[in-house]
Amino acid sequence: MARTIEINREFIDELREAIRDNDEKKALILLEDFHAADIAELYDEINIEEARYLYLLLEGDRASDVLAELDDDDRSRFLEVLPGEVIAQKFIDNMDSDDAADVMGDLSEEKKQDILLHLDDLEQAGDIVDLLGYDEDTAGGLMAKEMIIVNENWTILTCLKELANQADEVDEVYYMYVIDNDDILKGIVSLKKMLLSNNATKVKTIIEDDIIYVNAATPAEEVAQIMEKYDLVAIPVVDSIGRLVGRITIDDIVDVIREEAERDYQMASGLTDEVEESDRIMHITRVRLPWLLIGLLGGIMGALVLGRFEGSLKIYPEMAFFIPLIAAMGGNVGIQSSAIIVQGLANKTLKEERTMRRLGREFLVALFNGVILAALIFTYNFFISDSFALTLTVSSALLSVILFAALFGTLIPLLLVKMKIDPALATGPFITTMNDIMGLLIYMLIGRALYGIF
Amino acid sequence: MARTIEINREFIDELREAIRDNDEKKALILLEDFHAADIAELYDEINIEEARYLYLLLEGDRASDVLAELDDDDRSRFLEVLPGEVIAQKFIDNMDSDDAADVMGDLSEEKKQDILLHLDDLEQAGDIVDLLGYDEDTAGGLMAKEMIIVNENWTILTCLKELANQADEVDEVYYMYVIDNDDILKGIVSLKKMLLSNNATKVKTIIEDDIIYVNAATPAEEVAQIMEKYDLVAIPVVDSIGRLVGRITIDDIVDVIREEAERDYQMASGLTDEVEESDRIMHITRVRLPWLLIGLLGGIMGALVLGRFEGSLKIYPEMAFFIPLIAAMGGNVGIQSSAIIVQGLANKTLKEERTMRRLGREFLVALFNGVILAALIFTYNFFISDSFALTLTVSSALLSVILFAALFGTLIPLLLVKMKIDPALATGPFITTMNDIMGLLIYMLIGRALYGIF
Repeated sequence: MARTIEINREFIDELREAIRDNDEKKALILLEDFHAADIAELYDEINIEEARYLYLLLEGDRASDVLAELDDDDRSRFLEVLPGEVIAQKFIDNMDSDDAADVMGDLSEEKKQDILLHLDDLEQAGDIVDLLGYDEDTAGGLMAKEMIIVNENWTILTCLKELANQADEVDEVYYMYVIDNDDILKGIVSLKKMLLSNNATKVKTIIEDDIIYVNAATPAEEVAQIMEKYDLVAIPVVDSIGRLVGRITIDDIVDVIREEAERDYQMASGLTDEVEESDRIMHITRVRLPWLLIGLLGGIMGALVLGRFEGSLKIYPEMAFFIPLIAAMGGNVGIQSSAIIVQGLANKTLKEERTMRRLGREFLVALFNGVILAALIFTYNFFISDSFALTLTVSSALLSVILFAALFGTLIPLLLVKMKIDPALATGPFITTMNDIMGLLIYMLIGRALYGIF
Repeated sequence: MARTIEINREFIDELREAIRDNDEKKALILLEDFHAADIAELYDEINIEEARYLYLLLEGDRASDVLAELDDDDRSRFLEVLPGEVIAQKFIDNMDSDDAADVMGDLSEEKKQDILLHLDDLEQAGDIVDLLGYDEDTAGGLMAKEMIIVNENWTILTCLKELANQADEVDEVYYMYVIDNDDILKGIVSLKKMLLSNNATKVKTIIEDDIIYVNAATPAEEVAQIMEKYDLVAIPVVDSIGRLVGRITIDDIVDVIREEAERDYQMASGLTDEVEESDRIMHITRVRLPWLLIGLLGGIMGALVLGRFEGSLKIYPEMAFFIPLIAAMGGNVGIQSSAIIVQGLANKTLKEERTMRRLGREFLVALFNGVILAALIFTYNFFISDSFALTLTVSSALLSVILFAALFGTLIPLLLVKMKIDPALATGPFITTMNDIMGLLIYMLIGRALYGIF
């Protein structure tokens, strides 16, 4: 009964042998105990012809479930050479409408048409065409058409009969959605409540009408926030006049949440787009280049700043030794400060209207850390360096840079939020580069002043 | 019916006025349309006495739902001064057992005892004591005791009756869990299937026994991966001999997924622990200091490296201008390379046993980016700088540093994975600092060599 199967080398070898020998029966027996998600993972271990042989062997829901679980890229490559008729009847006909729309969304217009024409299930074809019309990143793009719908004027008995009819196409029934004669969403009825009521009762009387729904145009991230906040397992989707058009289940939202979190992480790591290990080298190169270009520009500006102090550097070359320290610390503190803001926005813990208080706190934190670090580097240089001017310059510049970077790292993302720009953009390239340059300027200015005195 | 209420200033003012006037009726009317999650959010807008007044006004489930939705810190402060009896009877008695255990886990042993003694519901008290025994970060720590359990030998009719009995304490019924006479989990039965079967049928005959479950000791992150991979809404939890002890629902897993993603982001941003805007200043300071200390140490090592080249820097002070550029680019490329590995591990797209292939790809990507960036900085210096040696040094050092950083940034996290250490640790402090230092060394060595030639 335990079902986290380890896919090991021997198993793969045995499976490939069965494929090579064209032993359909053995291949199917080998896959028998596997969940569709596990079979989809096999894709990485076998070549594309083997996968095609294997997945076409599977029957009914299993074939379409495996296809739905494949990576987007893998799937497109897998489907490329299959005829529309096979794709339609082997995979798409049995799929949930949202998965079907996802799969077809990645294909060419020509292939889409080819598949739609070969679908046996005309209702499915209609649903897919409807769903393909929505933007991927909206509630409409996430929703499925499969749900149990009952009319508010029906009795429980009618509902239960209807459930038996409709249930076939719905895997899991969380709620039944109640509509009026104009298809307007009126509320939900839980299975539990229905079971506990009398068969002659009208749906109207046990309806729960105080429900949360979203519009088809609502952005996916907002849907995720609503479902997360209210702990919902499924949420109904309505059109602009309130007609029920679909429902979104939590498993699709889990992906949205993960992608959103990953996007922030990517931004912070200097990647401008989603990258997977399987992507082409040119794509990976292109995704990474923008931040590196900003870094290069920042480096050139840093060189220009230092160029203004060529005289000082000539006389006191030891000042150059601590340039990396100052630049690195400015960048580090800036990232730390801005990360709090970005994360606060992502998990909605960031509260508005407290800019001054937040800046005050950041300043205090930076002051504590700055004093500790400045004291450490002062002590180090005091014993190691011959130049007291250098000792004083490095430690006081470090403190100033840390304070500046903390305030800058807090202010910039807050400003971006006000301007409706994603502050995650700021944590990566912009803040580090700006803090590098400002840090150098502060360091050299303090250095010139202090060397003049001591 | 739309229910994403905007909490505005006037509403807050009106609410605070009702509280000040001790107008219970008005306060309750104001909150009438609010979901528990919305009422919990009010906490940030009113002071703690007002919150206490308000939340104690709420009745039954609503009071406990609001408490469950509060931030951990807010909740501890909120409960601190309430007597155990009030907490027990107003909040804990009506809570789901997993929420109750979460709430009580943060309280002192003394307070826990005080609350447990005052619970009216002895079954609830027993469940809470059981749940408090599990580690927070395991399946046991996430699970709830509320579920519908049926015996495999019962008929459908018995089940439906039992459902009516048990359903009262379960909000949403996804499945019924089937056990044998020894409490061993045998499988699940869906409500749908039960409704479509004859009343005299035995549960045994319609049981779905090929189900996925976890052990109470399974780490939370693994539970999340399993539920995400298999698109589960709820998963049963068994003890070491297979007895059903609880179930985990997807809403609790959504939190685990978000926290996990945030943790990687924090690591990459140089924060060593979870930080929220509301945390105390000393805590925030302590969380940020470790990376800054590593950065300081790296800076000192950088200074030592540059110190070895004091002679060169004295003769060619313009070499110092590009120190920040070289250091920054090494760090940036290293972070980009390591982020792919960390993220691949987080979303399980990283495949084993392809280290050489991955290194080869990283090398190619770095080569493309490196050549582009080196060409740009070569062109810039060629026209701006008087020194051809500098022009050649900076561009060739930049290319070398980028190549080195890419390989280093890929190898280190892979090595950490092999050593079972969280590679997210590497993306932040370690890789950036090491690449900074190595970058400086490469730069100065190339500089000394090329200045000798040109």
